[in-house]
This record gives sequence, structure tokens and C-alpha cells, in this order.
Amino acid sequence: CFASQMQTVTLIPGDGIGPEISTAVMRIFEAAKAPIQWEERNVTAIKGPGGKWMIPPDAKESMDRNKIGLKGPLKTPIAAGHPSMNLLLRKTFDLYANVRPCVSIEGYQTPYTDVNLVTIRENTEGEYSGIEHLIVDGVVQSIKLITEQASQRIAEYAFEYAKNNQRASVTAVHKANIMRMSDGLFLRKCREAAEKHKDVKFTEMYLDTVCLNMVQDPTQFDVLVMPNLYGDILSDLCAGLIGGLGVTPSGNIGANGVAIFESVHGTAPDIAGKDMANPTALLLSAVMMLRHMGLRDHAKKVETACFDTIRDKKVLTKDLGGNSKCSEFTEAICQRVRDMD
Amino acid sequence: CFASQMQTVTLIPGDGIGPEISTAVMRIFEAAKAPIQWEERNVTAIKGPGGKWMIPPDAKESMDRNKIGLKGPLKTPIAAGHPSMNLLLRKTFDLYANVRPCVSIEGYQTPYTDVNLVTIRENTEGEYSGIEHLIVDGVVQSIKLITEQASQRIAEYAFEYAKNNQRASVTAVHKANIMRMSDGLFLRKCREAAEKHKDVKFTEMYLDTVCLNMVQDPTQFDVLVMPNLYGDILSDLCAGLIGGLGVTPSGNIGANGVAIFESVHGTAPDIAGKDMANPTALLLSAVMMLRHMGLRDHAKKVETACFDTIRDKKVLTKDLGGNSKCSEFTEAICQRVRDMD
Ligand SMILES: CC(C)[C@H](C(=O)O)[C@@H](O)C(=O)O
Ligand SMILES: CC(C)[C@H](C(=O)O)[C@@H](O)C(=O)O
Repeated sequence: CFASQMQTVTLIPGDGIGPEISTAVMRIFEAAKAPIQWEERNVTAIKGPGGKWMIPPDAKESMDRNKIGLKGPLKTPIAAGHPSMNLLLRKTFDLYANVRPCVSIEGYQTPYTDVNLVTIRENTEGEYSGIEHLIVDGVVQSIKLITEQASQRIAEYAFEYAKNNQRASVTAVHKANIMRMSDGLFLRKCREAAEKHKDVKFTEMYLDTVCLNMVQDPTQFDVLVMPNLYGDILSDLCAGLIGGLGVTPSGNIGANGVAIFESVHGTAPDIAGKDMANPTALLLSAVMMLRHMGLRDHAKKVETACFDTIRDKKVLTKDLGGNSKCSEFTEAICQRVRDMD
Repeated sequence: CFASQMQTVTLIPGDGIGPEISTAVMRIFEAAKAPIQWEERNVTAIKGPGGKWMIPPDAKESMDRNKIGLKGPLKTPIAAGHPSMNLLLRKTFDLYANVRPCVSIEGYQTPYTDVNLVTIRENTEGEYSGIEHLIVDGVVQSIKLITEQASQRIAEYAFEYAKNNQRASVTAVHKANIMRMSDGLFLRKCREAAEKHKDVKFTEMYLDTVCLNMVQDPTQFDVLVMPNLYGDILSDLCAGLIGGLGVTPSGNIGANGVAIFESVHGTAPDIAGKDMANPTALLLSAVMMLRHMGLRDHAKKVETACFDTIRDKKVLTKDLGGNSKCSEFTEAICQRVRDMD
């Protein structure tokens, strides 16, 4: 059986609460007998030849070999000119699709119920090109770069994702009324992909309209695909609808199966090392990872145990409204996983 | 007494439901004895010398003379290369600040209560520069233009607005972690304005973080100031929190007292001419206008009558949850206004 063969995953525990929540995930995976072997790597940017920032060779080598990574939060470097580690990782492994399912968690109260949508963000270009100029004193321009190739790739990905995950519709989010050429190109590629995948419903909508409709009734949305910056905004907005970054999983997907799954919350230095952190976002990211690897049964088991624990409300970390420690919350999930056998 | 002198305002009724809701506002202003005289003008873009789109000379002349305008919805032109009329108006009169107060309306249920914030959007540059290029086949760039002058002007406006409207804090919304030069310049100008206005609290926040926090707890925000596109997004998001564009006022402010107040919803062609439209957004925009003109007592009277009518729930248009006609809703507000005398 394929699933019983051990697969190695690169684990980047990260900073602050990263190591604690990584330990939590490892414990729960062990209880679930997930056939995963972890290869731990630290990621701190180093200066390579020519002064270019790069991730450490042993981390890169591990990812190149394993193709799949799980990553906790990384602290934002403060050195001038230092890139965000998250951006550097996306770039290094050409992780072109950022995928964030936002699903209401039963028992965790927010102003919304029945949210069940996925944001798919182009992760490599757009407003994140990094190209900026001083034109004359006091006049600056930033360049938003949109290419046919990247737009086509992400549009195609969105429709494939919808099909593989039994989702009925894809909405392209844009401002082609304002950025007629760039968002226009993006939109055209979405329309072309829609033509190829007629079994998935396609709609297009202005970003401002999506935001307005989203806070009024998020249940009308399914899969949303959009350029980089719009994805940055909308994915956080949607995370807010279901309880915030502490409960929202994220996956960065590249070509040929390469992918890094990550919690997108911060390092929470104030509670680091105090056994108080909430491992849910990293755990649900790891569940996405299991599905990506074809380990659907293990994914279901871990996910169910996590959601049941939250719905049960007896053992919850502080941010989830309880007063249990991270290790106690973790153990409660492990117990449920074991009870399923 | 200053307030008893008649002032002339340019009225652009607009398309679709525009004329009906304009009539509603005129009737309510008459009931409130607001010292306003209306000068009606149609605005349809025409092609001027050199093929440049422009607003009709008699509308421009009226605005130039009166300085203050009230505008209903304008239909989006479909001719290729035709600019949005809204953008053309902002440009023609250099209306550099778009101001949208978002205040929860008692009796109109949404997932949020006690929202009370104002978005202030830079209205002239940024992603709306209209400069785009095809670099090579399949590669397009859009230019986001940020200038010191426009950033300073809007930052200064935000702090002045906060002071004049008894608001305690201003938050600058940006992505200077990504667009270091352009958003960096914008942010620097906000910081400089904050230095000059130490009696107003100043914070800065990433756009994605604002969106996340906004849907979790909008009551934490007060005045928000931001570049053009972010304002487009955030103002619609915030409108969604309090009930949508049908109840959200908007003002476009320029130098030397020039300003156009407008409802930002669509022309609703499906219900146009059927006496079904909801005039609230245009009416509340007209209330902003009265305050802008120093007619605070008249503003308060009309606003109170409008909110009381909504809270009372007896006479409401369909979109507000009732089954009254536009003219009945209008008459209910007029009656309350008269009862105040
Ligand atoms: C950390 C930051 C550079 C990043 C971004 O802006 O993309 C973050 O907000 C995200 O969504 O992953
Ligand atoms: C009509 C459109 C051009 C406009 C914009 O994008 O600015 C609208 O969304 C707005 O907010 O006024």
C-alpha cells in the first residue's frame, strides 16, 4: 500500500512559538500513524555570493530532495534590504500558487457561519515585483508586472483545484476597469481557462465588490483566483471571517509536486516557550499537506480530531477561549485520533 | 444669519434611479428649509478637441461657479476607451480626497454594531495613474505613481478632518513592506503630518492586517487614510459592514472648498422609474454636504429624521426590509423633519 511507505518532509519549525507548535503537529501525526518522517531544517537568510540573500544551502538541499515542506512562523528580519523570508521561500522554489481554504469551524464563534471558500493567489509577480524607481525628487513609481505565463498558470491551477476538490465555481477577482492592460491580461487568461473547463462555473468580479459582498454574505463564494496583492488582502480578510490566522491553513504550491505548507500567523514572541500557543493553523496546514501527498485518510482523521476537540470546548488554548496549555490541547487531539482506531 | 442665505449647489441627478432619489433629497431639503438652491446639470462625457473625453461645458461651468455638487449614480459607459465618469469628475475638479463615513445604522441589522469609522482615500494617483505598457509580448506593466505632494496633501487632510470632527486617531494603511519606495513615501508623509498634529493619535498598519482586524472588530478603527486602490477596497469593505452602498454616503473633496457628494451605488436600471429606489445613500451624502457648507443644524435635522425613520421600521423601501415606495419613505422622513419645528 502506497500510504504505508514512509515519506520524508522538510520541517522548518521557525521562530517564537514555531518549535512548540511544530512539536504539537509531530505528536499528533505520530498518534495518527501518518507515514511521515521529518527532516528538520533551520531557515535564516544568509548572504550568498554577490551579496544576494538566500536560504541556507542545507535547507534548500533538503527541500529540493523532499519536495514537500511544513513551516512554522519566521520572524521578519529587521536588517535593511533584508527580504521577507516568506517571499524568499516562494521565490526560491517558484511556489506560484498560494492556497488558503477558509472554512467555518463549528464551535468557534465568529459573526459568520457556513463560510466555505478557497482563495488562490498568484504568488510570484504583480505588485510584488520589487521594481520601483524614483522618477524625480518626490515622485516614485512601483511597477506591477503581469505576465501571460504566470496568469495562465494560476488560472489553470484554480480550475484544476476546483475539480479535484469538488468545488463548483471559480471567481476571478480583478480591477480591469482601472488596470485595463495588466488586470485585463490576467482576466483574459482566466476566461481562457474557463473555456477549457466548462464543467466549473466561472464568474468575474471587481475586487471592491468582492470585499463588499464578502462581509455581507461570504457563503456566496467558492473558489476565488486573483493577482498577488489582491490575494494578500482577500486571504487575510477571509481568515478574519472564520476566526483569524490562528485557525487558517495555507499552502504554497509549485510545479512538479513541490509545496510548502505553513501557518501564516506571527511568531508571538510574548508567549513563546510558555506552552500557551495554539497549534491549529500549523496542524490544518499539515492536513492540507497530507491531502497534497495523497494521504487522504490520515488527513481526515487528524482534521476530524482537531475540529471535534474545538467543538467540544473542554480543552482549548487561551486564544480559542479556553485555559488549557498547548500540550494539553495537543494531547486531547491525540487521544481522539487514537480513539478512532 | 449666514445659514439663511441661499446657496446654489450643482445637482447631477444621474442615470437609472438617479432622478428619483434626487427628487427625494430635494423634497426632504425643502421640508427641512435647507437654504439650498439646486442647479440641475446632466453629465454625459463628450469628446472635446483632440478627442479627449471631457464633461459637458455647462456642467463644468456650473460646478466652477457653485463649487459644491451633489451627484446621483452615473452609468458606466461601454464605449471602448471611454473613461469612468466618476474618475473624470475627480480629475476635472482635482477632488483629491474621497471621504466615506461608515456608521452603524440603528435598526438596520448587520453582523456588526457600533461601527463608527471614516475612510479617507487619496483620489488622484497611485494605481489609478492609467499608465500601462506592453513590455514584450505577454508581459505587461502597470505603473503605480506616488508623489510627495499628493501624499502630503491627503495626510494633512486626514488629520485636519480628525480634528474638525472630534475623532481621536488616524491610521495610515499601507504595504510599505512590499512597495518600499511608493508606499514608503506615502507612509513618511503620514508620519510627518502626525508629527504636526500630536493631539491626534497616529498608528500605521498593513492593509492585509487592517482587513483581517476590520472583519473581526471594526470598532477598533477611527479615521483611516490610504492610497487610491487601498481606499477603493477598504471603503467598499466598510460599507458592507454597515449595510452596503445603499446606506453609505461619500464625499469627494478638492481644494478651496470644491466638493462633490455622491451615492456610490449603481444606477439599478431594473427598478428605475418604479418608485422603488432607496434614497438613503444620496440623502446622507447630502447631509455630509450640508456639514461641509457649515449648515450643521440642517444636517442634524435631516440626518436624525432619516435614522429615526429607519429605526422605526414602519415605512421602509424594499432593500431596507420594508415594502414602501421611495416616495412613501421620503414622505415619512419629510414628516419627521416638519415635526421637529
Ligand atoms: C509577510 C508578508 C511579506 C506577506 C505578504 O505580504 O505577502 C504576508 O502578508 C502573507 O500574506 O504571506
Ligand atoms: C467606478 C469605479 C471606477 C470606482 C473606482 O474604482 O474607484 C468605484 O469603485 C469607486 O469606488 O468610486
